[in-house]
Amino acid sequence: MIYDFEQCSAVIEEQLKKLAIGQKKPVNLYEPVVYVLDAGGKRIRPALTLMACNLFNDNIRQALMPAIALEVFHNFTLMHDDVMDKADVRRNRPTVHKRWSESTAILSGDAMMILAYQYLCQSQPDILPSLLEIFSRTALEVCEGQQYDMDFESRMDVSIDEYLHMIRRKTAVLLAASLKMGALCGGSDTQNAELLYRFGISLGLTFQIQDDWLDVYADPKVFGKAIGGDILSRKKTYLLLTAFEKAGDEDRTLLSALLLDDGLAPEKKIQQVKSIYERLNVGDIAREAMASYDRQAMEYLQQVKLPDESRKNELKKLAKMLLGRAK
Amino acid sequence: MIYDFEQCSAVIEEQLKKLAIGQKKPVNLYEPVVYVLDAGGKRIRPALTLMACNLFNDNIRQALMPAIALEVFHNFTLMHDDVMDKADVRRNRPTVHKRWSESTAILSGDAMMILAYQYLCQSQPDILPSLLEIFSRTALEVCEGQQYDMDFESRMDVSIDEYLHMIRRKTAVLLAASLKMGALCGGSDTQNAELLYRFGISLGLTFQIQDDWLDVYADPKVFGKAIGGDILSRKKTYLLLTAFEKAGDEDRTLLSALLLDDGLAPEKKIQQVKSIYERLNVGDIAREAMASYDRQAMEYLQQVKLPDESRKNELKKLAKMLLGRAK
Repeated sequence: MIYDFEQCSAVIEEQLKKLAIGQKKPVNLYEPVVYVLDAGGKRIRPALTLMACNLFNDNIRQALMPAIALEVFHNFTLMHDDVMDKADVRRNRPTVHKRWSESTAILSGDAMMILAYQYLCQSQPDILPSLLEIFSRTALEVCEGQQYDMDFESRMDVSIDEYLHMIRRKTAVLLAASLKMGALCGGSDTQNAELLYRFGISLGLTFQIQDDWLDVYADPKVFGKAIGGDILSRKKTYLLLTAFEKAGDEDRTLLSALLLDDGLAPEKKIQQVKSIYERLNVGDIAREAMASYDRQAMEYLQQVKLPDESRKNELKKLAKMLLGRAK
Repeated sequence: MIYDFEQCSAVIEEQLKKLAIGQKKPVNLYEPVVYVLDAGGKRIRPALTLMACNLFNDNIRQALMPAIALEVFHNFTLMHDDVMDKADVRRNRPTVHKRWSESTAILSGDAMMILAYQYLCQSQPDILPSLLEIFSRTALEVCEGQQYDMDFESRMDVSIDEYLHMIRRKTAVLLAASLKMGALCGGSDTQNAELLYRFGISLGLTFQIQDDWLDVYADPKVFGKAIGGDILSRKKTYLLLTAFEKAGDEDRTLLSALLLDDGLAPEKKIQQVKSIYERLNVGDIAREAMASYDRQAMEYLQQVKLPDESRKNELKKLAKMLLGRAK
């Protein structure tokens, strides 16, 4: 049987409920865990795990506990990142450190990471060592990505290469590991699993650059959050770094001054940065990069060897859905 | 060959250096990890692991990576606890969040927990699943203990039983798991490993109650930190909770009022609380509890079946050293 994205997400939701984390004690430790896991989110990573498994195997439940581990780990990173980024709202609700306290967000996050390992350890014993190796390496890379991202805040000389190195860790490796672990659970050989890992990396890079693009060019009615937030927070995005690389001395000076100008009204600042972006063609350059990584992703998926090629369709559909927001 | 505590500690120090964590990148993520691991500490937990292994096996290196995992995990908990407790100094140096930032302490701590799992996964494959199970369960219990401890801060009705339940998690289980994991690495059967676990629990309870006792009754010249800190911070210690249990209505009211009296000079407050403790015989009751748990610990150690009983001597010596500070 072939499962689509919605079916995989539903299996994940059902299993998350079965874990009954809310019944564990002390309440103050586990309630925030349930709060964050209940907030929804699209369950992209665990769905990728089940779908990658499903390329090789009808029984997606073989990949269920690793998938759960990845989702719990992902939500742990959100809980701690929100403390570090001082974010007040996530998925339209107060973040854990706002609703409870910073200590709660730290400690409940720690518990989530341990829970993730506990769930992972419920995988098939024969592949558990491989899964643990991928999982821990990836988890550490995600921390490294977050550290690079924080390091970039105080630097004005970040290169596009450094940026790609950062988002590869912060965003792409977890998607890639989700696919690879699912493939291994389904009985994939190493080569196919590795190709799916690379597919995930390219998908993740496209996804993150799209996110940067949407912050500036999205339709505000569809986007859901305010346009230009990255500009106001001087975030080193693909767009900003491209602008710095393409700009002549004059534009570079102007752009730096604009970003640092605290007296300028937010809409004005966004508008003026955007007009530099137009002049330097930054939006199109970002879209070209996305198209290029997207193509690369599809080539890796193409190279995966399956008896039945049509099994790839659901992953292709999901990739289209994820990457189709930059219109 | 039989190894004593100092030799085991030295093996741990040497291995910690070999890990070369300081060479990993980004520097801002791993430098605080090295800072904390370099600060010393007695390496009690990993030494217990090697010593428990040594009861059954001459080759203590079989237990080396699990021992390292336990030490790295322990230092991770210190890093995060210091943020939660707003502690400025640890081992005579600024804490990580003071020297760098809270975000650094959170993220480098997260990386340490993942590193701990990576080191653990370098254990002997045949017992890795058992080690992982003990390690994760214990790690989660330590978080639960920290949560109970924080919950107690805002409660005035904590019972001695609840307190014991808390310190069992926050302090004792990690010592117990260190012993049990070491035993399993040495080839111990389940029964001996379980007896060593219980030995560790009793040892941990004694150790924590001793810590509470020392805060009030230690020789200031030997103790290293100021006397009465727990009283000033209204910490729910074995002594305070015993006082509340033993006190009549009058003393209970007086004790509550004293603790909450912010106008009273610190030395006066400590002195007056101490005089209530004297009246209620709290110091002796705590020492009796310590003696009782210590006896229990030795009984469990006694029950461990070894061909050569003398192998237990080093563990007995270490227990004496750890518990001999309440004179």
